[in-house]
Amino acid sequence: MKLGEGVEAAIHCVATLSSVEANSTMPGAALAEAFGLSPSYLLKHLNMLSAAGILESVPGPSGGYRLAKAADSITLLDVVLAIEGRQPAFRCGEIRRNGPVKLDGSAYVKPCGINAAMLKAERAYRAALAETRLSDIVATFNREGDPRSLAASCAFVERHQRPRKPGSPKQI
Amino acid sequence: MKLGEGVEAAIHCVATLSSVEANSTMPGAALAEAFGLSPSYLLKHLNMLSAAGILESVPGPSGGYRLAKAADSITLLDVVLAIEGRQPAFRCGEIRRNGPVKLDGSAYVKPCGINAAMLKAERAYRAALAETRLSDIVATFNREGDPRSLAASCAFVERHQRPRKPGSPKQI
Repeated sequence: MKLGEGVEAAIHCVATLSSVEANSTMPGAALAEAFGLSPSYLLKHLNMLSAAGILESVPGPSGGYRLAKAADSITLLDVVLAIEGRQPAFRCGEIRRNGPVKLDGSAYVKPCGINAAMLKAERAYRAALAETRLSDIVATFNREGDPRSLAASCAFVERHQRPRKPGSPKQI
Repeated sequence: MKLGEGVEAAIHCVATLSSVEANSTMPGAALAEAFGLSPSYLLKHLNMLSAAGILESVPGPSGGYRLAKAADSITLLDVVLAIEGRQPAFRCGEIRRNGPVKLDGSAYVKPCGINAAMLKAERAYRAALAETRLSDIVATFNREGDPRSLAASCAFVERHQRPRKPGSPKQI
């Protein structure tokens, strides 16, 4: 079982965007620079986060990305599902039906117990991810992070955030 | 996030082998037939289960596979880790270190909070998988499975299990 590398990038990006001032945005290229990632690689994940309603993409010269909702309304589960999709990790192929004895569909009305047990574990995983909000991640970093990392992160946000100008185009 | 299809095959195979009589075995080809799988595809997974100490592979003409321990000593977690490996699903690439400001290693002594939160969720997943024993899966099937499926499964095991002959070679 493996989550794509995009999950780490996505969580770091939404955490960074939570420090951007209200109504300001940060360009995707700056987010890529913040974590040493290729902008085109990151763009795919930023688009997924936008499609899932976690980020807003603001067009135009002073555009970029910002959180679409408050950091305490975004959970790790939201981000993981945005990047990895909503399908469970265990995808039952109903191989119980493939054996030499062919029974009709009525023999398989009840879900396979193996699938049921695997989905129960997945619910536990998702519940744990849903318990951690983006605001928790950020609060822990602010409280326990190395002061040099904190200072570098704040300076980076200061340098790259783009205040939305009055009269700028409506966000998409 | 996706588990390999081998997990479903592996769990079904160990569940089938739990019905084989003591000291008897079942050939890999029969297990493949039971679930409509390619024997060579399944062999890879049976070998993984053997390497993990879940199955025993008995060589020779009357050989095959059997459980290496009691069904109540094998959990879904054992099987998932045997097939998928022991690494967590979230593999922290430490991208927090890749940004434009290079800090020395002492700034990153504490684990990244994002990694810590993701690993916490993985522990919940693994704990739930560890709660379900193979014997639970089998008991549920025996209690709630469709009688036609149960009968077909029992008949298949009867037909394909191979009693170990006295004086047959020692198991590997």
